[in-house]
Amino acid sequence: MTAAPHPAPAARNARYLQIRAASRALAAPLSAEDCAIQSMPDASPVKWHLAHTTWFFETFVLVPHAKGYRAFDPAYRALFNSYYVAVGERHPRPERGMLSRPALEDILRYREHVDEAMGALFDQKDFSPEAKNLVELGLQHEQQHQELILTDVKHLFSRNPLRPAYLRQWPLTTIQARKPRWIGSQGGVAEIGHAGEGFAFDNELPRHRVWLEPFEIASHPVTHGDFLAFIDDGGYRRPELWLSAGWDTAQKEGWQAPLYWTQRDGAWTCFTLHGEAPIDPNTPICHVSFYEAEAYARWAGARLPSEAEWELAAQSHREKCAHDGNFVESGALHPLALRESPPDGQLAQAFGDVWEWTRSDYAPYPGFKPASGAVGEYNGKFMSGQYVLRGGSCATPGAHIRHTYRNFFAPHARWQFSGLRLARDA
Amino acid sequence: MTAAPHPAPAARNARYLQIRAASRALAAPLSAEDCAIQSMPDASPVKWHLAHTTWFFETFVLVPHAKGYRAFDPAYRALFNSYYVAVGERHPRPERGMLSRPALEDILRYREHVDEAMGALFDQKDFSPEAKNLVELGLQHEQQHQELILTDVKHLFSRNPLRPAYLRQWPLTTIQARKPRWIGSQGGVAEIGHAGEGFAFDNELPRHRVWLEPFEIASHPVTHGDFLAFIDDGGYRRPELWLSAGWDTAQKEGWQAPLYWTQRDGAWTCFTLHGEAPIDPNTPICHVSFYEAEAYARWAGARLPSEAEWELAAQSHREKCAHDGNFVESGALHPLALRESPPDGQLAQAFGDVWEWTRSDYAPYPGFKPASGAVGEYNGKFMSGQYVLRGGSCATPGAHIRHTYRNFFAPHARWQFSGLRLARDA
Amino acid sequence: MTAAPHPAPAARNARYLQIRAASRALAAPLSAEDCAIQSMPDASPVKWHLAHTTWFFETFVLVPHAKGYRAFDPAYRALFNSYYVAVGERHPRPERGMLSRPALEDILRYREHVDEAMGALFDQKDFSPEAKNLVELGLQHEQQHQELILTDVKHLFSRNPLRPAYLRQWPLTTIQARKPRWIGSQGGVAEIGHAGEGFAFDNELPRHRVWLEPFEIASHPVTHGDFLAFIDDGGYRRPELWLSAGWDTAQKEGWQAPLYWTQRDGAWTCFTLHGEAPIDPNTPICHVSFYEAEAYARWAGARLPSEAEWELAAQSHREKCAHDGNFVESGALHPLALRESPPDGQLAQAFGDVWEWTRSDYAPYPGFKPASGAVGEYNGKFMSGQYVLRGGSCATPGAHIRHTYRNFFAPHARWQFSGLRLARDA
Amino acid sequence: MTAAPHPAPAARNARYLQIRAASRALAAPLSAEDCAIQSMPDASPVKWHLAHTTWFFETFVLVPHAKGYRAFDPAYRALFNSYYVAVGERHPRPERGMLSRPALEDILRYREHVDEAMGALFDQKDFSPEAKNLVELGLQHEQQHQELILTDVKHLFSRNPLRPAYLRQWPLTTIQARKPRWIGSQGGVAEIGHAGEGFAFDNELPRHRVWLEPFEIASHPVTHGDFLAFIDDGGYRRPELWLSAGWDTAQKEGWQAPLYWTQRDGAWTCFTLHGEAPIDPNTPICHVSFYEAEAYARWAGARLPSEAEWELAAQSHREKCAHDGNFVESGALHPLALRESPPDGQLAQAFGDVWEWTRSDYAPYPGFKPASGAVGEYNGKFMSGQYVLRGGSCATPGAHIRHTYRNFFAPHARWQFSGLRLARDA
Repeated sequence: MTAAPHPAPAARNARYLQIRAASRALAAPLSAEDCAIQSMPDASPVKWHLAHTTWFFETFVLVPHAKGYRAFDPAYRALFNSYYVAVGERHPRPERGMLSRPALEDILRYREHVDEAMGALFDQKDFSPEAKNLVELGLQHEQQHQELILTDVKHLFSRNPLRPAYLRQWPLTTIQARKPRWIGSQGGVAEIGHAGEGFAFDNELPRHRVWLEPFEIASHPVTHGDFLAFIDDGGYRRPELWLSAGWDTAQKEGWQAPLYWTQRDGAWTCFTLHGEAPIDPNTPICHVSFYEAEAYARWAGARLPSEAEWELAAQSHREKCAHDGNFVESGALHPLALRESPPDGQLAQAFGDVWEWTRSDYAPYPGFKPASGAVGEYNGKFMSGQYVLRGGSCATPGAHIRHTYRNFFAPHARWQFSGLRLARDA
Repeated sequence: MTAAPHPAPAARNARYLQIRAASRALAAPLSAEDCAIQSMPDASPVKWHLAHTTWFFETFVLVPHAKGYRAFDPAYRALFNSYYVAVGERHPRPERGMLSRPALEDILRYREHVDEAMGALFDQKDFSPEAKNLVELGLQHEQQHQELILTDVKHLFSRNPLRPAYLRQWPLTTIQARKPRWIGSQGGVAEIGHAGEGFAFDNELPRHRVWLEPFEIASHPVTHGDFLAFIDDGGYRRPELWLSAGWDTAQKEGWQAPLYWTQRDGAWTCFTLHGEAPIDPNTPICHVSFYEAEAYARWAGARLPSEAEWELAAQSHREKCAHDGNFVESGALHPLALRESPPDGQLAQAFGDVWEWTRSDYAPYPGFKPASGAVGEYNGKFMSGQYVLRGGSCATPGAHIRHTYRNFFAPHARWQFSGLRLARDA
Repeated sequence: MTAAPHPAPAARNARYLQIRAASRALAAPLSAEDCAIQSMPDASPVKWHLAHTTWFFETFVLVPHAKGYRAFDPAYRALFNSYYVAVGERHPRPERGMLSRPALEDILRYREHVDEAMGALFDQKDFSPEAKNLVELGLQHEQQHQELILTDVKHLFSRNPLRPAYLRQWPLTTIQARKPRWIGSQGGVAEIGHAGEGFAFDNELPRHRVWLEPFEIASHPVTHGDFLAFIDDGGYRRPELWLSAGWDTAQKEGWQAPLYWTQRDGAWTCFTLHGEAPIDPNTPICHVSFYEAEAYARWAGARLPSEAEWELAAQSHREKCAHDGNFVESGALHPLALRESPPDGQLAQAFGDVWEWTRSDYAPYPGFKPASGAVGEYNGKFMSGQYVLRGGSCATPGAHIRHTYRNFFAPHARWQFSGLRLARDA
Repeated sequence: MTAAPHPAPAARNARYLQIRAASRALAAPLSAEDCAIQSMPDASPVKWHLAHTTWFFETFVLVPHAKGYRAFDPAYRALFNSYYVAVGERHPRPERGMLSRPALEDILRYREHVDEAMGALFDQKDFSPEAKNLVELGLQHEQQHQELILTDVKHLFSRNPLRPAYLRQWPLTTIQARKPRWIGSQGGVAEIGHAGEGFAFDNELPRHRVWLEPFEIASHPVTHGDFLAFIDDGGYRRPELWLSAGWDTAQKEGWQAPLYWTQRDGAWTCFTLHGEAPIDPNTPICHVSFYEAEAYARWAGARLPSEAEWELAAQSHREKCAHDGNFVESGALHPLALRESPPDGQLAQAFGDVWEWTRSDYAPYPGFKPASGAVGEYNGKFMSGQYVLRGGSCATPGAHIRHTYRNFFAPHARWQFSGLRLARDA
């Protein structure tokens, strides 16, 4: 991981507290019961997210760097370890939902205990650069779990016949979708990966050269309306449109539409964080797997972009886009249609709204080196069997995203806000 | 079901409220989180038990018999239906743990709503005998779920590495176990099944004749100490002691001891409702499956009794035994050793402490007729693939048990307080 | 097991060779490929049946009783052991279909090797009664596997889209079915179980008393035509007709008709050992599970008989019936309609045609003692989770059957020729 | 697919017959029983391979291009279709082992029938270029299945406790392994993919540019001896060496060594097509999954090469290497140690011996276009979830391999002759 420039103690603490408070705020509309349940092995209880992010600071920052730090509860070391083998024992992932104890209120006190100790640490003179980097990593890590709090609770609520809403402010503003244009690129030798001083994960490094053939990429992501046309054209019944593994998965799982869709009296609705809602055709499609995205692209006579193509296309206007995006801070918690399209040659909605599947498997960049120590398990060991997504979603904290940011999920995963943007050979 | 003699309105209401309050009291030491989680498909969340028993009165008593009754929430009709196909839709059993909503406090208000309506109904003049019988059935049903509240929360807590205690009052009094004697019976034509005016489930009827060969039955149940000798003698490693299906299950599940046992530094402990505890060799063994009970009996040169043998042996002193038993009201919530042995020819601990597996499959008695209406699904449809247990346990309400009472579980089930008593041919 | 009276050496050998030849004859229409494949874990390759029955004589008769006997191949000891733990290692049951080697011709030579050694043994002076009993057990065992050869190859062929016929002599004679009458019995104390000198398995012993309430039993088994009426009346779509475990199984497996039935253009056909054939409504129904039999009986306003009821009803005319039955020797290999009905008060088709499910779980008779030695694993260890069938089928050798004979299968099993006869309370 | 230059009719037929005969020869040591059994869903019976390759010519060449061609058996159209959805119905893959009929001899007659019709077609004047291309594709396809015949029968024999040998000519010559050297490459813009007139699959096209950072690649593949050191160093017990998905797979499957290895009295042996054999430390390692290859490389302080790196390194001496390789024609049917090492800068054993896992997921090359028609399903639809292997193995026909050839398997697959060669950043 590259280190961000380090702010002064007070600012450091303020930023720390702001990000920590954001996690707490996400849990505010939820009851202790909502926070305790695990709805599938891929998802975790909200309470676990609140504890695990705290465990990260305790384990990687406080225990090695804060003299005299007293662990809140020694049992938490194994209980809230996600997958860090080097740290020792781990409570098994599918068992996270068995933990009615510790109670949510115990976890909130755990958060306060750690936040206090972190405040004290920030004031220490000998706060080492290594510790600073681990704090930054912990904050980035916490932001990732903020997104998972929302996607996991959405999944839980979707399993409840009462169809509860996390937030109720529907209908969201409806805007007519713009027709996408093709934006061309000449290709050649390009550079991708993180550069400069800001924070980046180890998987965004090193910056390196790639060769790209000329290509075109769509100005806008695929919308719910586009995807309805795919369904209406028999998209889920035509094996020739699908990768073999995708077709097998779709048959086994009985997929007939994206996750959270229900057909009632011929009309499709979808479950949102605002409860059940009609499909808005103008908004970017979400909750599709890599397989569905790939099949859609074939049906549309196009393909998914590679992650290098996506990064190159987003690079020139990365600052502006990232500011305008529909991130978690907008409160929409659902992809939106765009009020105004960007100037020619720029991608609309590249950042926020929905993660965009690319055709690139999640693999190490040439020269990749995992971070040293236990945090080296953060990214590298997951580099097989997954595909890269880019750009962040309506559940991502805006400050968390970069144009070099690589998210990754298994090709069948659908519970994230995952959509797509088309590309084609020039 | 046979009808109990019907008490006057006030008494009726008092009895109703007393049993309903007992359920509520069992949940008192638990948090909303404890009550929301389902630890395995066989178990249900405590909240679900509290709701489903209430649903029973609402669906089978109030809706058909209380004029103008307004349902607390129409969605509950499907949500808290366990398996009554005739009532309509059912929320799937393994999904009961997905219901973070309705909240525990909603369920407690649901209980109050129904209890009020029931109180009003009791005062009605035209309270029909049919309604009275359904009320009694509902109360018996509620008592069954009281036991399940305890066994299900015990299972949940056992999955938590923190090993929480439901109640902490260990150590329980330790008493030296008595050596069991054999009690003989001449057999011949005997009668089993319910007779008389008191309540009984339809599966205890009709009273009928059976032929029994001469047999002997043990005065005391098998103890933890006895079972340790079986383990020490390689009981879990000797296929010749087991039924074939039992051995296959034991291998697949990796059984090396009863459920909830852990070996630490060579010594066995077990998880109880008081937390982790040492094994007390003097107390009746519990948390063994039919398969383990059957293998133990073969190892001991004996066999399990048939349910008819058990009932015949318990018949003569059924009143006395049932009074003395270690039921849920004792607060021990764990089997205990007996202070004094009963007179010669009487069974010790036949009632309470642990359910005793019999060698009888759960089948209809000759002439069995399921109750009419939806409550006919109560017992009859489960009459395959299960074995009968007798006598109640330390988690059963004492007033719920009769010597003709037939409990039943699958032969691999271990999470009930299930033990055994030996028998042999005379 | 009780011993049959022992014939003289020559007769003994003749009987031995006749039964052994019958197994060989069953394999005659099959290729080596047909004999090698295992179509499901419950079924075994024909080659395995031919080898295992031979292994039985080698292991239990020749090795302990024939001086100087040289094993055909020492590897066969584990390879063809079915489930005798006391004999040592066993090749896992689901792997029986991996054995392309030894070749079918090797197994046929193995049979000759063992048959020669057995012939020599029969001539020995000191041929002990114990050995004689084991020979008889081996022959009874071989007859059981003769039936399995047919049911297992039927299952294999049913999985082949070419729908090959084992034998082609369709159509079988069609005869109008007779309407069944109810045959009454007064019940009381009755005796069941084997008596006398002939051979019986240990599970038919000891003969013992039971009490029976008055009952009626149908003169004829349920026919294909009867069962079609059940299907047409929604039998497979009405959960109220089914045991809970039966309904769950039917849903999970997608049962809509008995095994081997296919609907083509609205008409049902079934796969037989003669290939695909139309349903003949006059013939006894077969290939139904216990669950389907039990649901049919409920739909018909009746119930399944207990095994004691069946045995009592069949007892008086057991000799005559057993002679007339449609057993494997008839060559029909399918249940047939009856040419003439028996006199009043006698069961038609009690023996042969189809095995008849009873309501009795497969349990030890009072006083049951398994045979001593490894053959004690023959029956006793399977006494849980199965139901008793009576009377033999069109695939059973006629000489193998007795009115006290207890067959047993899991309640979901359908690949045997299993049907039913109704009973009801008087 | 690019077309090979088309030879004259007689030569065409000779080449066709030679390749077809090679398949037949591979089945010669096998019995009909050996050819009928499917040992796991990934593998197919040899009989099926013999039929399916014939089906390919019948379906894609004879039916559309040979006037008046009469199908050998219309049922084979579905029976031996592997995965061509466009061709219609398919017999399910895991059911291939149910086909005791058609018999092996029927399939051999099917082969003759098709070969005759192909011979007649070759003589036709109007034999179109399209047909010629499909013939070539069919021959390449047949060569692929020749390799699978060997790997699938090896798997079948490994499941048989008798450990049969396909061929018995052990010991193979033992030669001392050479220590590998690192061969450097400067990287930069390189070209990979097929060029020129010879045949290539569509997945090798189009030839295109890639950017490579400087790298080094090992002169020799990793040997059995190297891999033993990894095992001895706890390689299978150290999660930090593994990808997360690899570690999970290894735990679930209980991997402790490559496939086919057995430890007896402390020494490792492996099952080969010559039967059980001691490990020869000098020969290239095989039967490792991508996960094991990747973990080994990390343990060795190196990494797997990308497929572009491999192709670039093999490019300069591709002709020579391919001639010298240990392919199926050598008859060794097992990887061998190299007699002499190649000149500096050249890869040893790049072709033949073992397929070499690369770090590249199997993805479409930029500009990839699947072949048109049903044969477009040949490659493209499998481009997810698999990794690329290069160079062919001791079971591959030598004439089948090119330096641009892309084989692909799932990361957990081990039943191919799959090994690895190390690479590292320069």
